[in-house]
Amino acid sequence: MNTGVPSLNIGMVGHAFMGAAHSHAWRNAARVFDLPLEPRMVAVAGTSPERTAAAAQRLGWSEAVTDWRELIERDDIDVIDICTPSDTHREIAVAALAAGKHVLCEKPLANSLAEADEMAEAARKAAELGIWASCGFTYRRQPAVALARQLIQDGSLGTIRHVRVTYLQDWLSNEKAEHSWRLDASRSGSGALGDLGAHAIDLAQWVLGEKITTLSARTRIFVDARPSAGSGNLEPVTVDDAAFVLAEFSDGVIGTIEASRYALGRKNAFGFEINGSNGSVAWEFERNNELQRYDGGADPRSAGFTRVLVTEPSHPYLQNWWPAGHTLGYDHAFVNQAADFVTSICAGLQPTPSFADAAYVQRVLSAVQLSENSHQWQAV
Amino acid sequence: MNTGVPSLNIGMVGHAFMGAAHSHAWRNAARVFDLPLEPRMVAVAGTSPERTAAAAQRLGWSEAVTDWRELIERDDIDVIDICTPSDTHREIAVAALAAGKHVLCEKPLANSLAEADEMAEAARKAAELGIWASCGFTYRRQPAVALARQLIQDGSLGTIRHVRVTYLQDWLSNEKAEHSWRLDASRSGSGALGDLGAHAIDLAQWVLGEKITTLSARTRIFVDARPSAGSGNLEPVTVDDAAFVLAEFSDGVIGTIEASRYALGRKNAFGFEINGSNGSVAWEFERNNELQRYDGGADPRSAGFTRVLVTEPSHPYLQNWWPAGHTLGYDHAFVNQAADFVTSICAGLQPTPSFADAAYVQRVLSAVQLSENSHQWQAV
Amino acid sequence: MNTGVPSLNIGMVGHAFMGAAHSHAWRNAARVFDLPLEPRMVAVAGTSPERTAAAAQRLGWSEAVTDWRELIERDDIDVIDICTPSDTHREIAVAALAAGKHVLCEKPLANSLAEADEMAEAARKAAELGIWASCGFTYRRQPAVALARQLIQDGSLGTIRHVRVTYLQDWLSNEKAEHSWRLDASRSGSGALGDLGAHAIDLAQWVLGEKITTLSARTRIFVDARPSAGSGNLEPVTVDDAAFVLAEFSDGVIGTIEASRYALGRKNAFGFEINGSNGSVAWEFERNNELQRYDGGADPRSAGFTRVLVTEPSHPYLQNWWPAGHTLGYDHAFVNQAADFVTSICAGLQPTPSFADAAYVQRVLSAVQLSENSHQWQAV
Amino acid sequence: MNTGVPSLNIGMVGHAFMGAAHSHAWRNAARVFDLPLEPRMVAVAGTSPERTAAAAQRLGWSEAVTDWRELIERDDIDVIDICTPSDTHREIAVAALAAGKHVLCEKPLANSLAEADEMAEAARKAAELGIWASCGFTYRRQPAVALARQLIQDGSLGTIRHVRVTYLQDWLSNEKAEHSWRLDASRSGSGALGDLGAHAIDLAQWVLGEKITTLSARTRIFVDARPSAGSGNLEPVTVDDAAFVLAEFSDGVIGTIEASRYALGRKNAFGFEINGSNGSVAWEFERNNELQRYDGGADPRSAGFTRVLVTEPSHPYLQNWWPAGHTLGYDHAFVNQAADFVTSICAGLQPTPSFADAAYVQRVLSAVQLSENSHQWQAV
Repeated sequence: MNTGVPSLNIGMVGHAFMGAAHSHAWRNAARVFDLPLEPRMVAVAGTSPERTAAAAQRLGWSEAVTDWRELIERDDIDVIDICTPSDTHREIAVAALAAGKHVLCEKPLANSLAEADEMAEAARKAAELGIWASCGFTYRRQPAVALARQLIQDGSLGTIRHVRVTYLQDWLSNEKAEHSWRLDASRSGSGALGDLGAHAIDLAQWVLGEKITTLSARTRIFVDARPSAGSGNLEPVTVDDAAFVLAEFSDGVIGTIEASRYALGRKNAFGFEINGSNGSVAWEFERNNELQRYDGGADPRSAGFTRVLVTEPSHPYLQNWWPAGHTLGYDHAFVNQAADFVTSICAGLQPTPSFADAAYVQRVLSAVQLSENSHQWQAV
Repeated sequence: MNTGVPSLNIGMVGHAFMGAAHSHAWRNAARVFDLPLEPRMVAVAGTSPERTAAAAQRLGWSEAVTDWRELIERDDIDVIDICTPSDTHREIAVAALAAGKHVLCEKPLANSLAEADEMAEAARKAAELGIWASCGFTYRRQPAVALARQLIQDGSLGTIRHVRVTYLQDWLSNEKAEHSWRLDASRSGSGALGDLGAHAIDLAQWVLGEKITTLSARTRIFVDARPSAGSGNLEPVTVDDAAFVLAEFSDGVIGTIEASRYALGRKNAFGFEINGSNGSVAWEFERNNELQRYDGGADPRSAGFTRVLVTEPSHPYLQNWWPAGHTLGYDHAFVNQAADFVTSICAGLQPTPSFADAAYVQRVLSAVQLSENSHQWQAV
Repeated sequence: MNTGVPSLNIGMVGHAFMGAAHSHAWRNAARVFDLPLEPRMVAVAGTSPERTAAAAQRLGWSEAVTDWRELIERDDIDVIDICTPSDTHREIAVAALAAGKHVLCEKPLANSLAEADEMAEAARKAAELGIWASCGFTYRRQPAVALARQLIQDGSLGTIRHVRVTYLQDWLSNEKAEHSWRLDASRSGSGALGDLGAHAIDLAQWVLGEKITTLSARTRIFVDARPSAGSGNLEPVTVDDAAFVLAEFSDGVIGTIEASRYALGRKNAFGFEINGSNGSVAWEFERNNELQRYDGGADPRSAGFTRVLVTEPSHPYLQNWWPAGHTLGYDHAFVNQAADFVTSICAGLQPTPSFADAAYVQRVLSAVQLSENSHQWQAV
Repeated sequence: MNTGVPSLNIGMVGHAFMGAAHSHAWRNAARVFDLPLEPRMVAVAGTSPERTAAAAQRLGWSEAVTDWRELIERDDIDVIDICTPSDTHREIAVAALAAGKHVLCEKPLANSLAEADEMAEAARKAAELGIWASCGFTYRRQPAVALARQLIQDGSLGTIRHVRVTYLQDWLSNEKAEHSWRLDASRSGSGALGDLGAHAIDLAQWVLGEKITTLSARTRIFVDARPSAGSGNLEPVTVDDAAFVLAEFSDGVIGTIEASRYALGRKNAFGFEINGSNGSVAWEFERNNELQRYDGGADPRSAGFTRVLVTEPSHPYLQNWWPAGHTLGYDHAFVNQAADFVTSICAGLQPTPSFADAAYVQRVLSAVQLSENSHQWQAV
């Protein structure tokens, strides 16, 4: 199909869960939103020729390659979309930016603060040349979350007092679940903390418009060895199973952040509650279309938490989706993210979150680990 | 205890489930509400001397008698509270009113329209002498229900378009559950219809401020014989297990009413949703402290059903109970009912609902059975 | 993109709300499911050249034409997908089937039973030649709904006693909302009944595996004239605003069905509760990823309605979507529907629902209108 | 009323909110439960003769006195029930125990750890003489909470991994709310911490069957001066408005505890979620009759959080209350508590929680304040 709109050519690295979600986004963004350039799914890079070719066909990429450097060297690719494990992010992103490619990189930005800072610095330099980098904290694009931020930004909630953020899954709860690279610190950097906690920290900071400044934290490994998928031999678990953070934000906000892969029954229960002097909001991803909002100015006789079904045309992103009451799911936020990314870079504007924003999240993750090690409050 | 407040002396007939609930009400009403006369629990009447004496002690009645007529003949009793099966209501109530006793009678008012009309006529005559009768449709005194009525009465919901009322239980769902007098039409008059449907009909009419005028209905017996508790022999079920009604109300309101003892998982799920031109309300007893309210005038960006926790001092009855957020349960409505009853009769006013109101409910129940028999729409 | 998989060539008629939803489905089905033929979005037909061309570009169709007959005449089109208003369905579908094209037609199948029967007859004849027709009752493909049907089909709920289905919207609640062709019986056939009630009837019958056999119904017009969008002159509303049905199904099931465009606060609240002798299920679209299920065999100490988050790999359609806990929305059911349709016709099997199934729904709609007119119970 | 059952004579000190709740409990406990001795409401002590006399009449006490010492000196009083502000608990309780009176004391046990330890020591000595003391952590007697503990005690949840407890109110959220003794540390000891946090800590420890061993905490004063009720002059707020605790329990459990009077919209939102290796439970007081339970052993196809309506005869305390589905509220837990207290002391057994248990809660409260002051982790 040639729609006559000039294209923005995408090369994607990685084609597992995140690769599928990003492919969905590139495929649909211009079908839903008015974009100045239409994303074209040029090529996907993987390691196995067979699996990459199969992924290209399944996900809708024109070509499959087995070295991500090939994507960076091509002139017909404008954007590098990084969907690989986090230990590879730095190398790919820095090379892509140096080659003049815009970059969208999955979260967490990196496995260490040093890597993240290097990436942020590379992005800062590229930005001077009009080359942009952004990190895929996609939950910012869930409409109910974006509405929560709007209500805080426009003052509807008054002065924010406290916040509670939880990101709960349960796939490690079974003690017999197998080991994987995700449980090996040398590959994944951290466990629930980087996987779930990074989202929690980014979302808290973004929705509130505040940064975490100091924290006290504990992480836990509940099951310290698991059977290898191949041999069945027990291998050590070297990343956290869960992390618990007491956090102080700028402007006096205080709160708790929890991330766990052991919250039995919670499948992807990412949520928050924020209480301000004039209102409160609460959200949970498992009912992602709803924002619970309490208006402190309402008559007590009829006040209460209002379940706002965030599907009205006046809600963020909804003008372009379905009529009121027709719910969105997980993948719509990726389409929204792709559209925002394309719109920003076509306008010569920094897409959000920047690598600097994502590096600050990494700084908080690092502070959590330092606090766990030191048993002390830690400045970010 | 002698509190120094002049007393209103109560005699209660029956001491099973409803007797316990009414006793709780008489015991606590003056401890919660400012009443002009303080209810005194003088005597309870039952059939078995032993069980009645035990009930008197357990429930807090000073005396136990084995003939309700004795209560009616005593000068030191002002109110007869009828908590017996519905086939006995007419005789007791008519005799009590004739003897100059105020009457509070459990629902359904009677087992037939003829009985109910006779009772309403007796009450009409007694009222001329300042003797009052009321029927125990206690769910009117659940604060969230009373708030729903207020919102309709004050016009907050605009013109009412339609209503759905459901009263669902599941205690007969098990096909092997035993037979009882409740399943014998000669004793209980009807099944789910009179037991649950009577509440549903009364509440719909009261909250809306409208009367059902015509209806089309179906009733069902799903299990037509059950083992006798004693012999184990199968005995026929002669009352409805469930009833389904399509109803037209005065003023153009239309709706459905359902009552069932076979809604597996629904324990006492009495609820309604009412939709008007300017708002909606929904309530369910299993979360009895909450009224869901939609305000049609709200900004669509933040509109939605608001879960009003009906525990504020400004809510009906709540001024006299606990602080905001401290929930009430099933029995509080009985205390509220006793207080309302005492307050009304002390003021020389008709307590609500009157026997005439309750007889109208009976007229609707009768129309349901006629419609089931005729397969026709039936005027009430 | 040429994925190397042989294609199934689609021509779509109509490009409004349903056209966008179907385009989304054709665009994504082969990216999610393993399909024997890959849908190719060849051409879309509309009436306005400009708007059709714009829709083709926006929605991703290679060509735009202004006469649906052109699609039918082309050899390179295999499937005609009908997304136009219901008064045009019969002519297009019958012509397409006669031309040897498979047909997917939006619901309601037609505006009258006569039209629907003619379409079902055309489909019956085409099926003899291996040409298949199906109707887009897409809610069957919501995973939680499909799970409910599985639980009933495999006997988990035991003997079904009763059902309640409601499909509630509120976009006509405002009395000043403008007139449109949807409120003109000559164009739309009926109002809430055909629009929402058709879905409710189809879903009830499909989930239960039973047919409605007799019914008593009432429909209502709450606001009988509305201002024309152009002139502002009042034009008569000639279709129902709401419909209420008391229905008897085959095998003794009984229930109520309600459809309304006046249920203020309910945006797309399509839901049901089904009670059987061994379990119950309840679902509502506004929380589409959840099925509430009560297991009658559970220990009463821990029994209750379980909120099943229908996102597990073992749930219908979910193997091909995202990991557990990552919710789906409205449009995913259209992708599922497209995949089911392609899979069926490639296997030479009747896709479901057939036109005969959809014509039976039309028969029920017709019975509702007859019952409203006659004030009588009506056999279907 | 003389029921013929020998009585246990109660003297109560204080007659405000807690006094009313305790009076309700003494009035009703023997009407619901089979008790070996029947509580008799002998006398209430207050400071104002008028208000105490009015309270006695309203709440149902035979006598009113203006010095609590008078109650302690009387031979006809067996139990001293302490419902006064916490700065008076130590003196009254120690004196009552020394006089051979059983003591039920409201929470928090005291305003300081030193006071609490002195009380626990007095209780230890009294217990040697068969005189018993207990502290009113009444939420232990909410049936859904007691069920949660049962499930943990019987191993249904497996090894507990983590817990989150929140106790949220909003009555101070308004910056213009008046000052009161509750905001003066010299009177109340602490703010949200002792008022709400004490409940949270006790319940967490009791439900889990574990003790908090170390913690890191932060408290906050959001509004540091408020107008005096009388003069309107600003008076300093010297107690915490909110407290946030990261806590390690015995046996490796970890969790967070939050208490706030600024959570706008949360009226009495006391709740917890506990995740174990084989199941999870969650509860919130505003829906106090429900326990959410996830069974890790369930088939994933139908697993999910089950909303157990804790009103079955097999649930804690429910055998003596109403039929299934007939909900309880706030005050029922006080009746349950009174019944448990009477049953224990009549059996010569230590009622729970003991003063030692309550002193341990005080030790945790003290550790929270030490951690706030030191910015260090604190052992309990």
